[in-house]
Amino acid sequence: KGDEPAIIETAARLGVPYRLFTAAELEAQVDRLVNPSDVVFAEVGCHGVSEGAALALADGELVVEKTKTANATCAVVRAADPIVDMAGRSRGKLSIIGIGPGQHSWRTPEASALVAEAEELVGYGLYIDLLGALAYGKKRVDFPLGGEEDRCRYALEQAAKGKNVALICSGDAGIYAMGALVFELLDRGSDQMGVSDAAHRVEVVSTPGVSALQGAAARAGAPLGHDFCVISLSDLLTPREDIVKRLIAAAQGDFVIAFYNPVSMRRRTLLAEARDILLKHRPADTPVMLASSLGRPEEHVRYRRLDELEVDEVDMLTVVLIGSSNSKLTQLGEGPRMYTPRGYARKIDGDLS
Amino acid sequence: KGDEPAIIETAARLGVPYRLFTAAELEAQVDRLVNPSDVVFAEVGCHGVSEGAALALADGELVVEKTKTANATCAVVRAADPIVDMAGRSRGKLSIIGIGPGQHSWRTPEASALVAEAEELVGYGLYIDLLGALAYGKKRVDFPLGGEEDRCRYALEQAAKGKNVALICSGDAGIYAMGALVFELLDRGSDQMGVSDAAHRVEVVSTPGVSALQGAAARAGAPLGHDFCVISLSDLLTPREDIVKRLIAAAQGDFVIAFYNPVSMRRRTLLAEARDILLKHRPADTPVMLASSLGRPEEHVRYRRLDELEVDEVDMLTVVLIGSSNSKLTQLGEGPRMYTPRGYARKIDGDLS
Repeated sequence: KGDEPAIIETAARLGVPYRLFTAAELEAQVDRLVNPSDVVFAEVGCHGVSEGAALALADGELVVEKTKTANATCAVVRAADPIVDMAGRSRGKLSIIGIGPGQHSWRTPEASALVAEAEELVGYGLYIDLLGALAYGKKRVDFPLGGEEDRCRYALEQAAKGKNVALICSGDAGIYAMGALVFELLDRGSDQMGVSDAAHRVEVVSTPGVSALQGAAARAGAPLGHDFCVISLSDLLTPREDIVKRLIAAAQGDFVIAFYNPVSMRRRTLLAEARDILLKHRPADTPVMLASSLGRPEEHVRYRRLDELEVDEVDMLTVVLIGSSNSKLTQLGEGPRMYTPRGYARKIDGDLS
Repeated sequence: KGDEPAIIETAARLGVPYRLFTAAELEAQVDRLVNPSDVVFAEVGCHGVSEGAALALADGELVVEKTKTANATCAVVRAADPIVDMAGRSRGKLSIIGIGPGQHSWRTPEASALVAEAEELVGYGLYIDLLGALAYGKKRVDFPLGGEEDRCRYALEQAAKGKNVALICSGDAGIYAMGALVFELLDRGSDQMGVSDAAHRVEVVSTPGVSALQGAAARAGAPLGHDFCVISLSDLLTPREDIVKRLIAAAQGDFVIAFYNPVSMRRRTLLAEARDILLKHRPADTPVMLASSLGRPEEHVRYRRLDELEVDEVDMLTVVLIGSSNSKLTQLGEGPRMYTPRGYARKIDGDLS
């Protein structure tokens, strides 16, 4: 019953903890049940669920014995003493958290609150390090880059034990991060290489975060001011021909484009191919922004013309933002700024008046 | 000199205020100058800049008279009394702030800090209301929806007076919000329907925010887990044929798509056209998420099949998220969840092993 919506909602409305017991734990109360049932035992492995659970939670007097309605059964025990250590375990919670690209001031209060309430932090080590003091005193389990599937399975199974687990991602956890993989694993049965039945019943919360693309855009000015798309150039999981198909579509649609995973040690040709495809559809002097280590002391931002985009200037952590044919690079007091106008010019200049 | 990078940087490094004076204010000190210059007067309208500025700021003794290097001139006055009211005016600052889609816990600390330090808040009234207590005690100037150009011009000109002004946008200020328009106005000369020369010299800071699209995605699960694009369906500023061209490109590229401004009172046909274009390229049961009033008490989320997307269910504040051909809708304990797998299935199922 760990994921029974009605009980979850009832506990939330009443503002009380929702505790879970195994059949064996409930069966340990068998001698104290007022209404033991062999039928229930045959079905779930203990002679009483409601009375057993109430008695397992509180050592006291059964003041309301097993009471049925069409949909639910309940029993109430009056504890002899205040309940300090809660028996059973909680449902388990997995928070999928995007902490933003680097600087603390871009991490949302919701993300910080979910980290703060978690008992265990799971993630790529650098991202957990970026949490600074917020991570102190918590169990942390670092996984290497590339260990995404192990990381998500581990986090789900730890939550399945009743723990409050935070899966720490950089940027927005739903944009090329662990979010989709967690749901992909939850969408598989335990017999289809999915996670355990217990893991299927944990509470899963996603919280949005500032993505690297937005951090880069804020530094640039407003390059995402009009329609844009986001493409990962990693062919590790996506067939190369699908990526090229998307590049051509993005070029034809004249979208502003943000590339994630533009290169890796092994893989350096797709970015050059992307540049060449785009050059067929937009001007050679289209502005390109390269942004590294956003929000960290070593932050580094450069602007290039599209035809002068060199793959060797880009590493795997660089965000590459390519303007549409309308994007502009301008010089302001504090340096170059890139923006993509939305079309107000036609209004300002009177074409639409 | 309001936007002179070297002086701006020097003030920042020294951690001291940077104050500006008009030529007339400097000329008021003419009788106290040790080194008045007719050449300087002919050029900038006052007989001394460095000595004049030092004397205008502090009523005291000129302890270092006009001293030149190749690039700069300075003078120092020792104030007779502590300086409490700073003469002149500051450079003026315009912060372009995205406050997220609604709930406070999605507003970044940087956005909150920039609002807190601002003297004047400019924006669409509802967005300023969403700031709650953070807006109390500040001057606020509400502009109507549709008054975007006036809003940005006003904010820039107020900053040009030396004020610290916050332009309040919902979501991310750089994504279809005021960001690009501010830079578009700054990129025009004062004789090209741009803003005043003084406004060109203000400090402009952009800060990223959680966009409505990300708030919606977090509620859904992880629909943006793979390549996506963002398209505004408003043909107010963008020619309809450009929008249709982008829709076709997005369909051909099999992107997950987020629509902003899906409909307005006047304009209701493009969303249906978009649906019909997409149906030619992805399955009829492709999941679609409709999300309204994200992060507010009246938040409302629905899921539909692409072929059952009805325009009448959508209003101008609805975020419409359309899955790619790979996006999935699954039932978890707390309800439906939508995600777009990144391709781990090929790894999990062994195709890539």
